[in-house]
Amino acid sequence: MSTTLEQTIATIPRMRPPEIGDAVRDRWDSLTKPRGSLGRLESDVVRMAEIQGVSTPSAGRRCMYVFCGDHGITEEGVSLYPSVVTREMVKNFVRGGAAINVLCRQLAITTFVVDAGVSGPPLDGVVDCRVAAGTRNFRRGPAMSREQAATAIERGIELAHDAAASFDLAGLGEMGIGNSTAASALLCVLAGVAPKDAVGRGTGLDDVGVAHKCAVLIEALAFHECDPADPLGVASAIGGFEIVMMAGFILGAASLRLPVVLDGFISGAAFLVARAFCPAVSELVFFGHRSAEHGHTRLLAHGGPPLLDLGLRLGEGTGAALAMGLLSSGVALFREMATFAEAAVSDVKALED
Amino acid sequence: MSTTLEQTIATIPRMRPPEIGDAVRDRWDSLTKPRGSLGRLESDVVRMAEIQGVSTPSAGRRCMYVFCGDHGITEEGVSLYPSVVTREMVKNFVRGGAAINVLCRQLAITTFVVDAGVSGPPLDGVVDCRVAAGTRNFRRGPAMSREQAATAIERGIELAHDAAASFDLAGLGEMGIGNSTAASALLCVLAGVAPKDAVGRGTGLDDVGVAHKCAVLIEALAFHECDPADPLGVASAIGGFEIVMMAGFILGAASLRLPVVLDGFISGAAFLVARAFCPAVSELVFFGHRSAEHGHTRLLAHGGPPLLDLGLRLGEGTGAALAMGLLSSGVALFREMATFAEAAVSDVKALED
Repeated sequence: MSTTLEQTIATIPRMRPPEIGDAVRDRWDSLTKPRGSLGRLESDVVRMAEIQGVSTPSAGRRCMYVFCGDHGITEEGVSLYPSVVTREMVKNFVRGGAAINVLCRQLAITTFVVDAGVSGPPLDGVVDCRVAAGTRNFRRGPAMSREQAATAIERGIELAHDAAASFDLAGLGEMGIGNSTAASALLCVLAGVAPKDAVGRGTGLDDVGVAHKCAVLIEALAFHECDPADPLGVASAIGGFEIVMMAGFILGAASLRLPVVLDGFISGAAFLVARAFCPAVSELVFFGHRSAEHGHTRLLAHGGPPLLDLGLRLGEGTGAALAMGLLSSGVALFREMATFAEAAVSDVKALED
Repeated sequence: MSTTLEQTIATIPRMRPPEIGDAVRDRWDSLTKPRGSLGRLESDVVRMAEIQGVSTPSAGRRCMYVFCGDHGITEEGVSLYPSVVTREMVKNFVRGGAAINVLCRQLAITTFVVDAGVSGPPLDGVVDCRVAAGTRNFRRGPAMSREQAATAIERGIELAHDAAASFDLAGLGEMGIGNSTAASALLCVLAGVAPKDAVGRGTGLDDVGVAHKCAVLIEALAFHECDPADPLGVASAIGGFEIVMMAGFILGAASLRLPVVLDGFISGAAFLVARAFCPAVSELVFFGHRSAEHGHTRLLAHGGPPLLDLGLRLGEGTGAALAMGLLSSGVALFREMATFAEAAVSDVKALED
């Protein structure tokens, strides 16, 4: 394990400070509404404060990192779209025409497009963190070397440092044709899910396509015999550059008290990698939405309840962006609502006390 | 039935125009994303276009009407908070310190606070539509006269005309201590739900309080023997001024092709009243969220799947406002995303065609 990674994990907070949670709950109860009536928004703001380590959390400065990478496993015909679409979509992100661009404009989220390992020559307008021009086909060989996996993790940690210096809340998105196969493999190894429960339609496979994808996955898992106790080994065997870099970002953000909102199935797989390095990250991320991708509900059982369930299955960070809007609303309510005292509204509970 | 109400119902569109739905779906499929991958946002934008009667829907001009009224049934001790809190909260709305104010500021929604029937003298800074200074106790008498119910409906229709002249999308919220008891009664009569399944904690009753509220409800229902085929009679017997006025707003908005986003349990009861006058309104509203209030899931079974499920139970329009944010995101995606052709991204489906 690299020094950067070890140091990062060592500084990830293991406990949520109880005094912060108490202070935030007390303020929620002082605001002009029945106690607890903002439901999940109240508890999520409590957790955001605990992560940030402050009694008044902030969500005004928001960023979205879209990690992009290509996958050698596409040679096996596991995706409806050809690999070149990754590159085409990166250009679409840079020009601002993709779904994530629209949402980030609408929700005042600064977007960063990260080339974690896109095939072909370097691209303009992206944050260049590329480890290599796409992974290798992991059906009968490692997707990347251990050194490459470590590099991807470290670059993710570095990006988290950049983000934490300027933002209060970060979203994670991704683009990579073939990456739902890698994510399914990670779900099998790191969460003990059976291949048939981990494989889904991705960008739109039919039943025959899903069965083929499942067969490829079963072969790959049998070939690698991954050891879940060796997360770097797992990441190098069956990961993807964008997934492993996201895992690094999650670890880095956790160490820096930067709350992270995950998107769907792929960023969820990155969470599993990060959790394999440091279980404490489970308490330090938000699950943005439940994806329509088949394996995501299984994955969320290892994470937490998502904020949204709208049948999205696009990726790019779209579900994370929408969830960041909700969390921002929660923080705005917490910071801006009048108290019973300020508004001269009768507080039954206060009278009872 | 008044002429205004009859004319409004007569102009409510009975069918969704298929050519608009087809045009919207075709555009969704031309945008740079896998087909259908924006899930519920895609289908909701289709329906918004159908309601507005245009192939490119708009959601940029948004309003929230917060209907406020008092309830004589509070004499029976059905609420944790005293009636005066309605008035105190109206003042809080006018000063901008309540939860709905914070959300509407954040989400660029223009807020209107409507006095539909608040106890005490007229209030400053509100839209004065008051029918009377609170309803009567409906345990053993009508909450209001038929004439008052008709007036409330008509004023709601008039407000919908104001809203439709200036806005693309309207949210409905409310405030009224005691109004969850009226809403529960309407759920029993208009949807055939048993009192025990219709009654909940409101602003925070304990089990003893809920049992008492249920007993009061059972007595009131037995006293009135409402005829669900006479919606105006039901509204006058067990309604509330803010609830009945919201029902009028829903009918008026439907007749004017203004999409309406409902909030939780109380605005859901208003929907049941509107539906009793004109079943076609079911297709013309959006259910913003699933409230934590016990009866709301039963109510939604008569409506439709909500956009959000965050355990909110505050009212005021808070869930509707958050859902309006999501719908606005959907419309922005529809209007602003690049097409496959514009972005030069390979569209597998297009190649297949």
